[in-house]
Amino acid sequence: MRDSNYVIGIDFGTESGRALLVEVATGREVATAVHPYANGVIDDVLPGSQIRLEPDWALQDPNDYIEVLKQAVPAVLRESGVDPADVIGIGVDFTACTILPVKRDGTPLCFLPEFRDRPHAWVKLWKHHAAQPEATRLNAIAARDGYDFLPRYGGKISSEWFVPKVWQIMDEDPAIYAAADRIIEAADWITWQMTGVEKRNLTTAGYKSIWHKRDGYPPPAFFRALDPRLETLVTEKMSTDVYELSEKAGGLTAEAAAWMGLRPGTAVAVATADAHAAVPAAGVSEVGRMVIIMGTSNCHMVLSEEEHIVPGMCGYVEDGIIPGFFGYEAGQACVGDHFAWFMENCVPVAYTAEAESRGISLHDLFEEKASTLRPGESGLVALDWWNGNRSVLVDVDLTGVIVGMTLATRPEEIYRALIEATAYGTRVIIDAFVDHGVRVDEIVATGGLPDRNKLLMQIYADVTGRPIKVAGTRQGGAFGSAMHAAVAAGGYATLREATHAMARLRDEQYEPTPAASAVYDQLFAEYLRLHDYFGRGGNDVMKRLKGLKAKVLSGE
Amino acid sequence: MRDSNYVIGIDFGTESGRALLVEVATGREVATAVHPYANGVIDDVLPGSQIRLEPDWALQDPNDYIEVLKQAVPAVLRESGVDPADVIGIGVDFTACTILPVKRDGTPLCFLPEFRDRPHAWVKLWKHHAAQPEATRLNAIAARDGYDFLPRYGGKISSEWFVPKVWQIMDEDPAIYAAADRIIEAADWITWQMTGVEKRNLTTAGYKSIWHKRDGYPPPAFFRALDPRLETLVTEKMSTDVYELSEKAGGLTAEAAAWMGLRPGTAVAVATADAHAAVPAAGVSEVGRMVIIMGTSNCHMVLSEEEHIVPGMCGYVEDGIIPGFFGYEAGQACVGDHFAWFMENCVPVAYTAEAESRGISLHDLFEEKASTLRPGESGLVALDWWNGNRSVLVDVDLTGVIVGMTLATRPEEIYRALIEATAYGTRVIIDAFVDHGVRVDEIVATGGLPDRNKLLMQIYADVTGRPIKVAGTRQGGAFGSAMHAAVAAGGYATLREATHAMARLRDEQYEPTPAASAVYDQLFAEYLRLHDYFGRGGNDVMKRLKGLKAKVLSGE
Repeated sequence: MRDSNYVIGIDFGTESGRALLVEVATGREVATAVHPYANGVIDDVLPGSQIRLEPDWALQDPNDYIEVLKQAVPAVLRESGVDPADVIGIGVDFTACTILPVKRDGTPLCFLPEFRDRPHAWVKLWKHHAAQPEATRLNAIAARDGYDFLPRYGGKISSEWFVPKVWQIMDEDPAIYAAADRIIEAADWITWQMTGVEKRNLTTAGYKSIWHKRDGYPPPAFFRALDPRLETLVTEKMSTDVYELSEKAGGLTAEAAAWMGLRPGTAVAVATADAHAAVPAAGVSEVGRMVIIMGTSNCHMVLSEEEHIVPGMCGYVEDGIIPGFFGYEAGQACVGDHFAWFMENCVPVAYTAEAESRGISLHDLFEEKASTLRPGESGLVALDWWNGNRSVLVDVDLTGVIVGMTLATRPEEIYRALIEATAYGTRVIIDAFVDHGVRVDEIVATGGLPDRNKLLMQIYADVTGRPIKVAGTRQGGAFGSAMHAAVAAGGYATLREATHAMARLRDEQYEPTPAASAVYDQLFAEYLRLHDYFGRGGNDVMKRLKGLKAKVLSGE
Repeated sequence: MRDSNYVIGIDFGTESGRALLVEVATGREVATAVHPYANGVIDDVLPGSQIRLEPDWALQDPNDYIEVLKQAVPAVLRESGVDPADVIGIGVDFTACTILPVKRDGTPLCFLPEFRDRPHAWVKLWKHHAAQPEATRLNAIAARDGYDFLPRYGGKISSEWFVPKVWQIMDEDPAIYAAADRIIEAADWITWQMTGVEKRNLTTAGYKSIWHKRDGYPPPAFFRALDPRLETLVTEKMSTDVYELSEKAGGLTAEAAAWMGLRPGTAVAVATADAHAAVPAAGVSEVGRMVIIMGTSNCHMVLSEEEHIVPGMCGYVEDGIIPGFFGYEAGQACVGDHFAWFMENCVPVAYTAEAESRGISLHDLFEEKASTLRPGESGLVALDWWNGNRSVLVDVDLTGVIVGMTLATRPEEIYRALIEATAYGTRVIIDAFVDHGVRVDEIVATGGLPDRNKLLMQIYADVTGRPIKVAGTRQGGAFGSAMHAAVAAGGYATLREATHAMARLRDEQYEPTPAASAVYDQLFAEYLRLHDYFGRGGNDVMKRLKGLKAKVLSGE
């Protein structure tokens, strides 16, 4: 390898794509550029039409992904001054499960005039939740017929995942299903556009499409039980060839190289998913260290050498995060979103005025005020279910609760209670892992929140009773993709080797304080009691309220 | 009676006193004047000293009451131009239980230099809550010894009432107890100051001092069981003479007449309590019509011809509201206070700005926005316990709950959920009355809220399934006192007669809407389930959180 070799990682997020140029030998981040998607998240009207989407829909335009290649990659080359000849590899990670129907040559159906006005021809973004009826039926059938994949996914297949989304197409627009030669993760579609070859990655296959290293996809009988027309889904529109992380998918085509200003033939790594790429980027390639990607939601990733059934997890996949390990994933649906909701809906004018007059953000003001409170002082406990519960209850119909308000309750107490609630949610997840054989000795935090809120980090350390370190990179997905690129291009022999050489942690670290942890143990017991009462059938009031709301809104 | 006779009612509230001059024959309100108490609610530092009060203390200065006589009564005479010779009577109502220790001649101990710096020498206002330890012990002893007065008060004597407050004096400053020749309700103290005679009223004796028409006060053995030094409390410092509502207590002394600019000898009615005075003022002197005084808290008053034990009520007293009936009282500790808390702590700047730019109050803005929501649309249900629960759980340690928040929840939805919660609380009370034999066919609302919030009134009608009428007077206490004065002065033979002649209802009326009531029946069932879970021992999380908070704050 040359002295100054570089790789580029591209992270395709929900609103934009980011390119990051990294030095292979050192992991030094040389340049980064973000390109926002012109059509963003399509959840209201289909672009160029008057067609309104139903609630819970969330689409994207694949052309926006191509534009990221055309804009963000040249931008990092320009900014860095790096010679494209020194860029030895490129890797991508993507939101998942984000899928699209395409023709045999990879052309998205939504690019074709005859399908442009058909919502099902477009990309279904990860947070498209309109396939819930299909997911519900799928889970019932899988449970009834005793398929052993269900426990691997914590007992439920999510409506966000591949099969429910495809089934929704079949249910609602079978002509689109018929016209689609392939239905594919956007992650794999973008590497296909770059290399000219369709190679499906192991990560999204495993975590989102019910693929297993030994067993493969569920058998045709399962798909037939869903809908006879789906029996041939895997063989006709997917592929049983699944490629390992850090493998080379192919070399850049001349056309794709021209888009980006790179050399044709430059190695492109097999794609991966954003959260999974962030694990090696946080320096973790061993057991016992949980990576939490903290942002609008929390994603919890941890490795184990053994296969364990952990109830209520999102799933585990052999080699799905770091080759050689079972990679376990869990999640909380609402973390940063929680605080954003609070800031938008619960902040009195006196606080806004104080933040303005002091020239600080509302987040900083509330962090400061909430920091003066001691654990237990507010008398509040909340359930962090404003966006349902992803782990361990796996129930989108759960909603938020706050208990303990008095006439003396102040906004900063509510704010702190919401932070604490998300920390309790994380502790429920950690306890479930530990109770089922997956070690969690310490936490490495990454994502947007660790930078922004030291109070939150300390509360997480106190509530979980574990030290928390912080990943050096602020771009976990893109950095991890760059690491995969480095391995795919031959810069390192293994991802673990790349992890040790390229990834680093910050000096800052949060240690649990025993006195605070002792109080939080008591509060966590209260949280758990409410969690089980509202979440495990003690009182299904949340579901009934949601049902009543739906009935009222539909005018029945 | 002369053609143009007048009476004056004086309502002694928490922050101020109000005089209202009323025409006897018609009930026409001629003039009103308010005089704020110079020392207001004393809950921080004793006036003229550095002495800090403990939490939960609330005192007043009796001189402030005299100032109301000196300022507000002359003001209504001036404003109305009525000849003092045409004022035939004066009546007063007071917050209760509000008590003070005095010398045999009526001089408050706090007027004496040697006691001025002793907090227990001052008036203990109704919301002085520092006698909770005494109330708790009293209830335990009364239950242990099987006293039959407990069920009359819903099973618990409140810490706000006479005996716990007196016991606190004995516990904490026995010298004050010893120096007090009399301990008396401020209501009776003020008529004493006006007439020169001490006459204790039946209302506060019955509702606040455990007096019963047939049984009188509890026997000496009961007081001895509390504390041997209290055995002689009733005979030495109180009185077994208790006077009926609307009776004449006496005539104005020359001194008191001079304070007010009235004629000596003018009839003064036996005093009463504010909420109880508001019932005839709302035109109610028969069974089946519940008067709800809606303000910072709700007070529910209803009459019955029979004696019923209704669990969790504040109490019932024969002749306590309208002579000839058993008067039942229940209450909610937090209603207007609830909305004030919301306005202070939960209103985002965008709403404040909208209200300002439109020149309307925040209350009006929220009423408007919340009015566009249909019952059940918010998906929220709350427990209205921000200030504990007065009826039917009688538990000050209960706290607030909201269930059902999502990321789409808006402030106006929370606001409406808080209104609905107070309506559910009222329905619990109504159901308890009806289930135990006390009819409630319709509601007459009075107090500050009915004027200010039509949405609230409609929600109460829909939730309770009962029509709601609104009292004509906006000054229920003062108007009711004026009615008592009219009877005491001979203007009417009975209070019922005065009620029919003087009190009126407004034209506006709120009818329950069947569709809304049907939805609210479902939501009320959810409220009840949560009410019983958190309030009847299913999960004592609120008490544990309060205990933990107290421990944390005390630094244990």
